[in-house]
Amino acid sequence: MREVAVRAGVSTATASRALSGNHPVPAATRARVLRAARELDYVANAHARALVGGGRKMAAVVVRQVTSPFYAQVAEGVEAEAADRGWLCVVGATGGDPQREMDFVRLMREEGARLVILVGGVVEDDAYRSRVAQYAQALDASGARLVLCGRPAPDPAIPALVVEFDNEAGARAITGHLLSAGHRRIVFLGGLPGNTALDARVAGYRAALAEHGLPPEAARVVNCGLGRPAGLRAMTELLKETREFTAVFAGDDMVAAGALRAIAEAGLRVPDDISVVGYNDIPLAEDFDPPLTTVRTPAEELGRAAVRIALRDPERGVGGRHVLGTHIVVRRSVAPPMAPPVRP
Amino acid sequence: MREVAVRAGVSTATASRALSGNHPVPAATRARVLRAARELDYVANAHARALVGGGRKMAAVVVRQVTSPFYAQVAEGVEAEAADRGWLCVVGATGGDPQREMDFVRLMREEGARLVILVGGVVEDDAYRSRVAQYAQALDASGARLVLCGRPAPDPAIPALVVEFDNEAGARAITGHLLSAGHRRIVFLGGLPGNTALDARVAGYRAALAEHGLPPEAARVVNCGLGRPAGLRAMTELLKETREFTAVFAGDDMVAAGALRAIAEAGLRVPDDISVVGYNDIPLAEDFDPPLTTVRTPAEELGRAAVRIALRDPERGVGGRHVLGTHIVVRRSVAPPMAPPVRP
Repeated sequence: MREVAVRAGVSTATASRALSGNHPVPAATRARVLRAARELDYVANAHARALVGGGRKMAAVVVRQVTSPFYAQVAEGVEAEAADRGWLCVVGATGGDPQREMDFVRLMREEGARLVILVGGVVEDDAYRSRVAQYAQALDASGARLVLCGRPAPDPAIPALVVEFDNEAGARAITGHLLSAGHRRIVFLGGLPGNTALDARVAGYRAALAEHGLPPEAARVVNCGLGRPAGLRAMTELLKETREFTAVFAGDDMVAAGALRAIAEAGLRVPDDISVVGYNDIPLAEDFDPPLTTVRTPAEELGRAAVRIALRDPERGVGGRHVLGTHIVVRRSVAPPMAPPVRP
Repeated sequence: MREVAVRAGVSTATASRALSGNHPVPAATRARVLRAARELDYVANAHARALVGGGRKMAAVVVRQVTSPFYAQVAEGVEAEAADRGWLCVVGATGGDPQREMDFVRLMREEGARLVILVGGVVEDDAYRSRVAQYAQALDASGARLVLCGRPAPDPAIPALVVEFDNEAGARAITGHLLSAGHRRIVFLGGLPGNTALDARVAGYRAALAEHGLPPEAARVVNCGLGRPAGLRAMTELLKETREFTAVFAGDDMVAAGALRAIAEAGLRVPDDISVVGYNDIPLAEDFDPPLTTVRTPAEELGRAAVRIALRDPERGVGGRHVLGTHIVVRRSVAPPMAPPVRP
């Protein structure tokens, strides 16, 4: 600790505080201490020291829920890539509870996992930033790597690798697809303010509207969050309130499933009356009624890339960020809009 | 070991062989040794001894793949029940590879998991029997419990609990539903000979046909296995070969998704031309085109029950078997058959 403090040009107490992650330390100072610690290959304790470069050949992947087809595909990608190397892979589900995330990451570190992969968008608040900094430091001290998959690194100096896909570009492209079909009144259904992944999709949606010369007030975002039940409920409400839209951009395919159901229950047809698009291209999106036009996100490849990049990057990927592409999959849920409805 | 041998009335060498699980020992002898070992609370080694009654508050659930909606729901049930108790839950996917299953179970035992839950039908061969006997003994010696979820206990004497649902009854009921609608030429699509879960569904299908007075040759089983691609391929082939059937009982909902697609691609309508039913009632089955009539299996409850029963049963559930019920969910994929086609 003394050596780290000297190298970083801070007091031993400050170095200790910065490394523990339990106390407030200015970001620049923390970054300096972390860099010094890495350079000295600082290892927090003897147990961890024994694991540096060693540890189990085990990758851990942490998702919100395994019943999300998107998360399950990412986890399967990690699993497949780990299995190809003869590694074990364990999956932890947090149900969105930070405490369970922390417990799981601690367990994995103690068990000597060499790779811990956190998947999925988050609300990037102070609690998140401090949590991830702690994970990164503790894992790094144990000789393990942290990969953030589809979520931001709160501080470029922390020893974590980011692998994600371009949420904003995908959203801009699919909104452009609706605009090209002639739609001008497009609702975004499934906003989740503060969540990094959804905010990026909303940003892409707004950017596409602007690119097509529409005023900002042309955007309408329904912040109902994700999941089929949320989509069903929000779409049912919206249809009671207004028919002043011709297309729906659902925040993900599960929201789209709920929206499709709500539209059918209202006696309307997709795409004749309303066009619907989704996000992710989950494996069953082509089995929806009608088959869903959506954004193919590289879910399995995201998981595979997280393993591959983490293992080949000699620098532990500090500040490393890898962005995968997305593309539109055109099926049968989009048609040109009907003539505007006559107002009552 | 001597005490165990004396109690079981066998030689020390035989007791050792029976407990190690690595050597052939007559089933009755093994059962006697296992019982004696349990009675003496035999613990294989000091490490394990330290864990008896202790260990991490951790449940481990092992499935073939997390991208299977059915397995994901079972895992989520385990997760939810574990979280309710403040336990951690880790999920392992084997891809169907026994070696990965063994590695994962060993890891979980070493890490002091108190509960290991193996999920899903298997080919019940000698390798399976010996593998599960080993798990059961090793986990029991560590003070942990083994639960077999939807798969058989190869030997009632091994210290494992079985929690399953009645595959045969569910299959009989849904086949009866098709028969009641007037169908007589029903194809079972998705057989997987040797797999305990699928064999039970085929048995239920055959039993229902027999109950309705149909001869054994009325049954037609296409052994294409599970998964959407398998269902799509097998249904496409079948439609090229014959139209001498009016209904399809798909081995699970993913097979049904593939079958629905194949039928649509052949220019036929469901249920007007062909009725289709599935198995499991995965969350998106109601979003298929048309919404799928299927057998609701208690996937999440299976996972929850595995945790609850294992933790409350003071006897470690030796030989315990708990069977959950299923029921039919009627949607829109079944109609009375059309008039028989005219033979060319």
